[in-house]
Amino acid sequence: MIKVVLLGSGNVASHLIKSMEDNANIDLIQVFARSKKSLENVIDSNKITTSFSDLKEADVYVISVSDKAIEEVSNQIPFTDKLVVHTSGTMDFRIMHPKNKRGVFYPLQTFSKNKDINMKVVPFCLETENIDDFTTLENLAKELSNSVYKINGEQRKSLHISAVFVSNFVNHLYQIGNALCEENKVPFAILHPLIEETANKIKTLSPSEAQTGPAIRHDEPTIEKHLDALENPIYKELYRQLTLSIQNVKKL
Amino acid sequence: MIKVVLLGSGNVASHLIKSMEDNANIDLIQVFARSKKSLENVIDSNKITTSFSDLKEADVYVISVSDKAIEEVSNQIPFTDKLVVHTSGTMDFRIMHPKNKRGVFYPLQTFSKNKDINMKVVPFCLETENIDDFTTLENLAKELSNSVYKINGEQRKSLHISAVFVSNFVNHLYQIGNALCEENKVPFAILHPLIEETANKIKTLSPSEAQTGPAIRHDEPTIEKHLDALENPIYKELYRQLTLSIQNVKKL
Repeated sequence: MIKVVLLGSGNVASHLIKSMEDNANIDLIQVFARSKKSLENVIDSNKITTSFSDLKEADVYVISVSDKAIEEVSNQIPFTDKLVVHTSGTMDFRIMHPKNKRGVFYPLQTFSKNKDINMKVVPFCLETENIDDFTTLENLAKELSNSVYKINGEQRKSLHISAVFVSNFVNHLYQIGNALCEENKVPFAILHPLIEETANKIKTLSPSEAQTGPAIRHDEPTIEKHLDALENPIYKELYRQLTLSIQNVKKL
Repeated sequence: MIKVVLLGSGNVASHLIKSMEDNANIDLIQVFARSKKSLENVIDSNKITTSFSDLKEADVYVISVSDKAIEEVSNQIPFTDKLVVHTSGTMDFRIMHPKNKRGVFYPLQTFSKNKDINMKVVPFCLETENIDDFTTLENLAKELSNSVYKINGEQRKSLHISAVFVSNFVNHLYQIGNALCEENKVPFAILHPLIEETANKIKTLSPSEAQTGPAIRHDEPTIEKHLDALENPIYKELYRQLTLSIQNVKKL
């Protein structure tokens, strides 16, 4: 049994807590949260502490808080020489206090409060300050997921930027599609099969091979019609920029 | 049996031909193509004609060619009073010659040459000049797909613009993610589960509810880090524009 204390109560923390609680080989002995209320329906309140001085001893401390709070939380852990990891895609492990052995435990997924996640397929990107700690962290990750990677800081930061493009920005394009449908009284659900196929396609074709549409065809009449029809100036500008980017990208 | 002649040999045409050939209730009696070679491995070459004067009589003529060729192909059909439809998302049916009864048969999907499609889930957007022809076209579409919609020209054009955002532009963001991974020697496959979850999420949450990431959190330090790290000026500008758009969109 791997003994874990998790510190945090946000989206990522909540999903990790649920997965750890469901796992027979992980002993989530305690969760630290600023208020017990934020984790209602996530974990038994007896397991929650709101005081750093009450923290128990564990094999791994998982700090799953906003980037700007990681350093301060790491300072407050009242132990030394423990394995302490954060779950951020962007932050260096060196921002945490060096009294402990540090690492990164980054689940590369988009977590929303009201949407369950199959943690078994979430890629975990791991990094440790000391080689000796890697196996411990790897064992923990492999309990949760079938997809575990050793990823250094530079690689993780680039993955995080890629994730913003392929998830956050993609979702925003879905939002624009949804808005255009609503304006024209067409159900957005008509676009679901297209969205699904677009996401599936790149598992068998490269994104470059999978590209279709007026931009890559240099179909200027259609592009002009679309730009004319788009009333929102932000959408119009995005359409223009994305079209140019498609037409100018070097083939991958 | 619905007798169909299909005119065209591109991506959409090829996928439609295959689905029609596989269907017991559709009699695809003939395909028109400028060259027989373009449909090798798609259909028996005996069924292909390269001459408009050889076109046979059918219940429906499906013109599946590039937007700019639709008008000319419709002019060349040597019959009158037949139901003639095109498969374009953007073009009005009125661009086709009025000697025939006109309509639109638009499959809303991204078709690539080397990727099979499950036509049963492809939404077909139908429109006919005369009410009387709608049932014929609907019957044909329902043979191919479980998802058939009556969509007028304005709605179809807005769906087509939405489709560009949620598919062509989304795929381009995948391409950027892929490029960033390659630059940093990380396998793009690490991002597949994230891409899949992002596409699935909007079936149960609205895109607005599903939005995560530094832009919506107004996490300026992360945004600044990402912009600093992006070397390609086009990607940098897209990052900036998409972030602004996420932060400025009114909640839907």
